[in-house]
Amino acid sequence: MEGQKLLINGERLKESLERFADFGRTKNNGVTRLALSEQDIKVREYFRSCCEEIGMTITVDDMGCMYATLAGKEEKSPIVMGSHLDTVKKGGRFDGVLGVAAGLEVVRTLVENNVQLRYPFTIVNYTNEEGARFEPSMMASGVLTGKFDKQIMMEKKDIDGITFKEALEKSGYDGEVENRLTEAAAVLELHIEQGPVLEGESLTIGIVECVVGMVCYEITLTGESDHAGTTPMNVRKDALFAANNVISAFRSKLSNLDEDLVYTMGRMNLFPNIHTVIPNKVIFTIEARHKEPAIMKQVEEIILGIEHSTSLEGCIMEMKKQWDRKTVWFDEELLESLEKSIASLGYSYKKMASGAGHDAQFVASICPTAMLFVPSLNGKSHCEEELTTWEDCEKGVNVMLETVLEIDKK
Amino acid sequence: MEGQKLLINGERLKESLERFADFGRTKNNGVTRLALSEQDIKVREYFRSCCEEIGMTITVDDMGCMYATLAGKEEKSPIVMGSHLDTVKKGGRFDGVLGVAAGLEVVRTLVENNVQLRYPFTIVNYTNEEGARFEPSMMASGVLTGKFDKQIMMEKKDIDGITFKEALEKSGYDGEVENRLTEAAAVLELHIEQGPVLEGESLTIGIVECVVGMVCYEITLTGESDHAGTTPMNVRKDALFAANNVISAFRSKLSNLDEDLVYTMGRMNLFPNIHTVIPNKVIFTIEARHKEPAIMKQVEEIILGIEHSTSLEGCIMEMKKQWDRKTVWFDEELLESLEKSIASLGYSYKKMASGAGHDAQFVASICPTAMLFVPSLNGKSHCEEELTTWEDCEKGVNVMLETVLEIDKK
Repeated sequence: MEGQKLLINGERLKESLERFADFGRTKNNGVTRLALSEQDIKVREYFRSCCEEIGMTITVDDMGCMYATLAGKEEKSPIVMGSHLDTVKKGGRFDGVLGVAAGLEVVRTLVENNVQLRYPFTIVNYTNEEGARFEPSMMASGVLTGKFDKQIMMEKKDIDGITFKEALEKSGYDGEVENRLTEAAAVLELHIEQGPVLEGESLTIGIVECVVGMVCYEITLTGESDHAGTTPMNVRKDALFAANNVISAFRSKLSNLDEDLVYTMGRMNLFPNIHTVIPNKVIFTIEARHKEPAIMKQVEEIILGIEHSTSLEGCIMEMKKQWDRKTVWFDEELLESLEKSIASLGYSYKKMASGAGHDAQFVASICPTAMLFVPSLNGKSHCEEELTTWEDCEKGVNVMLETVLEIDKK
Repeated sequence: MEGQKLLINGERLKESLERFADFGRTKNNGVTRLALSEQDIKVREYFRSCCEEIGMTITVDDMGCMYATLAGKEEKSPIVMGSHLDTVKKGGRFDGVLGVAAGLEVVRTLVENNVQLRYPFTIVNYTNEEGARFEPSMMASGVLTGKFDKQIMMEKKDIDGITFKEALEKSGYDGEVENRLTEAAAVLELHIEQGPVLEGESLTIGIVECVVGMVCYEITLTGESDHAGTTPMNVRKDALFAANNVISAFRSKLSNLDEDLVYTMGRMNLFPNIHTVIPNKVIFTIEARHKEPAIMKQVEEIILGIEHSTSLEGCIMEMKKQWDRKTVWFDEELLESLEKSIASLGYSYKKMASGAGHDAQFVASICPTAMLFVPSLNGKSHCEEELTTWEDCEKGVNVMLETVLEIDKK
């Protein structure tokens, strides 16, 4: 093999991705394939047949996660690749499926080149990563790694009142707890970036060092509802005016912290929300994400202390922490292997943080894990316009193959 | 009568108001009496019986407005008092009914003192002033004065799909177009202030010089929805950030115009309104009220020009005028009569503008019209806590009686 690098078949990868997208393809070339829906069950069957065709053995765990394994020369913990086959409603053709198709393309390349690894090689399809049908997202990997309680997850309902347990049993993918992913030589997830950074810097690959920590607060401002025509400005307790001051103060203070910090007030509701009535209540969320704990600590100090530097217009402010999570750092050795592979292939890249959550961030707590990003055009994802060039997909999978071969040498 | 001023019976007025409040009284001592509801029909029957008991004749017009008339010594256009007996859901015991009860108390006082006026005296109960069951508010007075189209009003539906026409016919108050109020020597409406000004200045009476002009715009900011975790701040088009800037700019500019100007952003909706997604659309209303056309012109200039002095954060702004109305000035001669009466009674008062709308503002276009306010405790109205002291109610009606006697002398 020296001197002549093993590369994947880009045309076959493209065909494979398009074939997967046939399961739930929407009018505008997106995909709707909610977890354990009819389309998800069909795509699982297709995935199973593809794997069996190239000599892999399928097992399923008690959360419905599928594991397709190719035997290695030696008895070892497997090298694992994969991601998820479910999508959001009117999602794209790349989010999740790229990681699964990448695993399949790696095995196909190995098999057609008669390369047998020392390690077993497993492709995983995690159930319900999106959480679009059953909240929360990353449900199965969360249960596998002890983040979520299985019994509680089993009772989660979709909008039609069907529980996850019912859907799982009906799907035929209610497998054995013994089949869960518990150890691996390495877990690698290839995913689209879902942001505009790589494209913006004209780079091909993102080595994901971490999934950033985040915090989310819900803020309630309570004032008084009075008649919009009869109440002079100086006696009002307008909850929207207070919220506007608080938002301005957040923006002013947070924008000075660090350029990598992101913060969003995505949800906001007024009460009574009538144009002729002064709002007596405004509830909004603020969530912020950054990889450095020191920055996140400052963010929380700013949120909790905002009252002292902002006029609340006579209103009362309450804050409730909705959740937080610490930054998850990926395996340093694996990150080095990825970087070495990229360099050997001559692709442009940068080390970056993931602002979005992924199954890999949970799995990182039980196995050496790393992630790789390829660019998302216009930073779009979770929509029908989601797009990554076939060339970038191919390069991403080439890095995966090269890294698998590297790990296999160890 | 000289030297010994005719005064109303405060105790009887109180009993009358409490009796009216029995029709639809809520657990918390408010009133729910939607237009043409069962309770409204019952209170109309009660009002009719009270009027007939003291020798008044009842007529009803084609919008269901009731007119109770006491004959005068001469053939003249009547002196009219009144307001409305309908309330909002969980409204108070004073809004509207005070003006009707005032008319009744004036007649009772005249009758028991054997005072016969030269002018006929009419108490009017306008149908559906609140617009709480059938939009718009001031429906009947709007039709009487040509502001609203009768046929369109007839087809207005309540939340159960019942049309105003159906409710009117069923109520038995579907009267004759010939009975409409078309001319009057004077129309006087006593009403609660619905704002905190009189109480704040420890005054008893407000002489309402005008109902202020207003304008309402709906503003739409359109940006881009992206992932809250993966989209750097500098490439976002956050519609909430844009709205935040616009609201701050409005407040800063409008607050410098005039202390009597009121402005409210009462309704605001975010899209998609998910805490982990950057808002791509924010729609909010801004409405402003002031009596001076020159100020209102400046307000509109500020609204329409806000784009030039505000960062829209890469978003697009659209503005749509929802409606406007010009300031309605009440009859100067009547205002002078009211002021003279108040002075003769020794009550404290101020001249003021009404920020809320009233039937009188429509009627002012066809008859000499004026309004009088009494204080609203804490400025509250349209709620169960709505309160005006019995003493202030009594004083308000005394001013009405004195003014009616004054006009009758002319």
